Amino acid sequence: MATLRQLAELIEGRIQGNADTEILRVMPIDQARVGDITFVSNPKYLPLLKSCQASAVIVAPGVEAPDSNLLISTNPYLAFAKILTFLQAASPSGKGVMAGALVADSAEVHPSATVCPGACLGERVRVGADTIIHSGTVLYDDVVVGRDCLLHAQSVVREGCRLGNRVILQPSAVIGSDGFGFAPDGERYYKIPQVGIVVLEDDVEIGACSCVDRAALGETRIGRGTKLDNLVQIGHNVVVGEDCIIVAQGGIAGSSKIGKHCTFGGQAAIAGHLKVGDNVMIGGRGGATGDVASNQVLSGLPLMPHKQWLRATMTIPKLPEMRKEMQQLKKRLDELEALMKEN
Amino acid sequence: MATLRQLAELIEGRIQGNADTEILRVMPIDQARVGDITFVSNPKYLPLLKSCQASAVIVAPGVEAPDSNLLISTNPYLAFAKILTFLQAASPSGKGVMAGALVADSAEVHPSATVCPGACLGERVRVGADTIIHSGTVLYDDVVVGRDCLLHAQSVVREGCRLGNRVILQPSAVIGSDGFGFAPDGERYYKIPQVGIVVLEDDVEIGACSCVDRAALGETRIGRGTKLDNLVQIGHNVVVGEDCIIVAQGGIAGSSKIGKHCTFGGQAAIAGHLKVGDNVMIGGRGGATGDVASNQVLSGLPLMPHKQWLRATMTIPKLPEMRKEMQQLKKRLDELEALMKEN
Amino acid sequence: MATLRQLAELIEGRIQGNADTEILRVMPIDQARVGDITFVSNPKYLPLLKSCQASAVIVAPGVEAPDSNLLISTNPYLAFAKILTFLQAASPSGKGVMAGALVADSAEVHPSATVCPGACLGERVRVGADTIIHSGTVLYDDVVVGRDCLLHAQSVVREGCRLGNRVILQPSAVIGSDGFGFAPDGERYYKIPQVGIVVLEDDVEIGACSCVDRAALGETRIGRGTKLDNLVQIGHNVVVGEDCIIVAQGGIAGSSKIGKHCTFGGQAAIAGHLKVGDNVMIGGRGGATGDVASNQVLSGLPLMPHKQWLRATMTIPKLPEMRKEMQQLKKRLDELEALMKEN
Repeated sequence: MATLRQLAELIEGRIQGNADTEILRVMPIDQARVGDITFVSNPKYLPLLKSCQASAVIVAPGVEAPDSNLLISTNPYLAFAKILTFLQAASPSGKGVMAGALVADSAEVHPSATVCPGACLGERVRVGADTIIHSGTVLYDDVVVGRDCLLHAQSVVREGCRLGNRVILQPSAVIGSDGFGFAPDGERYYKIPQVGIVVLEDDVEIGACSCVDRAALGETRIGRGTKLDNLVQIGHNVVVGEDCIIVAQGGIAGSSKIGKHCTFGGQAAIAGHLKVGDNVMIGGRGGATGDVASNQVLSGLPLMPHKQWLRATMTIPKLPEMRKEMQQLKKRLDELEALMKEN
Repeated sequence: MATLRQLAELIEGRIQGNADTEILRVMPIDQARVGDITFVSNPKYLPLLKSCQASAVIVAPGVEAPDSNLLISTNPYLAFAKILTFLQAASPSGKGVMAGALVADSAEVHPSATVCPGACLGERVRVGADTIIHSGTVLYDDVVVGRDCLLHAQSVVREGCRLGNRVILQPSAVIGSDGFGFAPDGERYYKIPQVGIVVLEDDVEIGACSCVDRAALGETRIGRGTKLDNLVQIGHNVVVGEDCIIVAQGGIAGSSKIGKHCTFGGQAAIAGHLKVGDNVMIGGRGGATGDVASNQVLSGLPLMPHKQWLRATMTIPKLPEMRKEMQQLKKRLDELEALMKEN
Repeated sequence: MATLRQLAELIEGRIQGNADTEILRVMPIDQARVGDITFVSNPKYLPLLKSCQASAVIVAPGVEAPDSNLLISTNPYLAFAKILTFLQAASPSGKGVMAGALVADSAEVHPSATVCPGACLGERVRVGADTIIHSGTVLYDDVVVGRDCLLHAQSVVREGCRLGNRVILQPSAVIGSDGFGFAPDGERYYKIPQVGIVVLEDDVEIGACSCVDRAALGETRIGRGTKLDNLVQIGHNVVVGEDCIIVAQGGIAGSSKIGKHCTFGGQAAIAGHLKVGDNVMIGGRGGATGDVASNQVLSGLPLMPHKQWLRATMTIPKLPEMRKEMQQLKKRLDELEALMKEN
């Protein structure tokens, strides 16, 4: 619970109305009741304010709603997220290594960390302060995990990989699986040992069942603040810059280097050994087959400017008709030419 | 083992031949021997009946096979499935909480349920009658699982999510991972806590390594009888109706609402915040980028009627040739126009 | 550590320089220092040899580098892989069933095998010599695992499935999940029991979070030496031949039969009930919707020869322009025809 005044301080916002209003929960505008705070970031929902029973509403500057308690923020969506975090935060009282956890003698777990029953930690693993490791998680030998991390059930971090601070692994995320490297030996394939590691920098989040392969030699690296959705594939020796967003079922093939602040839509793919610049947005199911310069919004396979792709894909259903028309044009032209010859 | 008479009662079918024939197994028509029952649902396989050694054959009405014991059903494929289930059914003698299972004191497990070694159940978890929870499965605090469920190894159900009756989770299915929600804060991203849950209604099946994200607020819901194949992604706040089929590697982005009795082919995708009606079929790798009305068979990206898509994609390999032809037409037209001017 | 002489014997190569040079590690050409061996398989990197500090370099015959110790091989990339394997190989001293592993009494584990803490082995499981089973892995009843296998954390092998020798499962690989089979019963779906198994032949590798479904009846089979990358889906009753490569996020739908020595790129898909011949290469995101004859390089959906696909996809961005041009041609033709009529 918090007063509106406390929340205004938290988000550095301004109050219009009663600052002593007590807030228990954050709720969507159509479900909010007394004790709830809600938010309007999209102006089209402003008319809903009239019938809304929320005790307070987070809005952008300039909104008129004389009957409501308003919490005014220049970024209402971010303010909503921060308030939600504040009201949710259970102090994660470190429980240490719980009964049923399997921890090697040489592992070092910070006393304020929590290792749940059924988690397995290998030799020389190090776990930082306030980190929580859920049941069923497996950390191989020599893994290093920073502080304030959250490793969900069944996540795996293989030997020698390193996680920064505030890293989140969703359930069944796999960090450090072998890169997919084989040397042809006649018709057969000889496995190339993958002896590198994976480094996840601070504030990285990896989605459920997403896989980040270890490097063949050297390291695969995911930059600070980058977020991977579920079922994403990152090949060996890939480097992803800071503050990137990779949506579900996307993939980056081996050795490609991605700049910072890129966003790749669902099922989008980057072929191997490519360079992608900064601030590149690739639409859902887009596919990069060559290098990509910075500051572009692209879609399609091959990639093209997003607006061009929208036009091009609208033409595809008309292709059979276009083909027929072209044959008609040809026929008419044949006839005209014949007629000209006659004359 | 069962007699043909028992099986006929089970499927409400009719026997032509010896009702006392004993049946041990169900086998495909080309491998069936004495003691086996087989089935023919596709008429093109009827000629195989002559050489088939099965003790009995499930067929549709109207099939002539005077030398075989026939079990006649209006739906032979369904009859086959029911007989296979009947002959397979091992009475799942509830073993309770087995040694090596890690179950919180406040969890309530029905005495007829089975919790295998290495499974982890959190605080206040409830597990219904005859449910089987395999090794390595993790149920977070406050999870509710109905009766007759089957949760395979390494599946994860996160805090507060609810499973109905007869729900099946294949290995490594993830229920209740965080939705992919971040509020931009300059170039960085601030994580929006995902405080909702997932509800899987009765008779839902979730494939191996498929992920159903918990809602940001409220719930993500999969309707009664819906089946997800492997490696499927369901975003936060999605609602899928009853009796849908989502084939492997498909994905539904956040907040989309799907009607009932829809079928989405492999790798098909639905963008976020869309509405899809009832009885919609989308072909493999189709992609919905806008709302979809009920009762349609669609394919492609953008979606178009499936038959139109078949024609359009057949044109794609001919595009370079079409382009060349068009340039030739243009040239011929230029020449004709010049000729006309001269005259 | 090894001398250059030992490494030359290992790869059956030839030395030019000092055979007693001591080698500790394999490193990429731009990071190699004294004590390292590096390799040049791509001639464009040969100029880097001059400034390289490596103690020796693996090269193809014909390379001139008088100041370097050369290890000459007709297949430098394969030689590199073999040397890396040799230098990495830690003798995997079998640790038997370790404390914290949960192994059924009827399971038979070879004394030279290793079963790590937290691994679960069901009834009658058999594990061969020198096989390593990592923490959190679950083998259901009646699973058979050969010798020299490596089963990583959280991998699952369901009941009755069989793994040959030298099989590798990356973390969270799922072998033997139920095939996706349902019989329509009105609007509802009735689950068809999946009572077959999966067979992984010798030298198969399965990537992280990849799924190989058990057969409905009979078996799903992955041929000797075939390698699956991460997040790959193999449907029930599929047969994949020997020495195939299936790159990440690809999928093969139920009952399709793939020949030997095929390579499928990332996100490529094969529809169900198809036959694909030997030595077929399908490019990234290609999709087979019909049978495919042997010895072809194909791409696209529908599949076409790869070179044709490259040309066709280059035309797609130009479609709106083509359409406009065609309308202009039509207009010009209309005018010409009108003009002809007048004359």
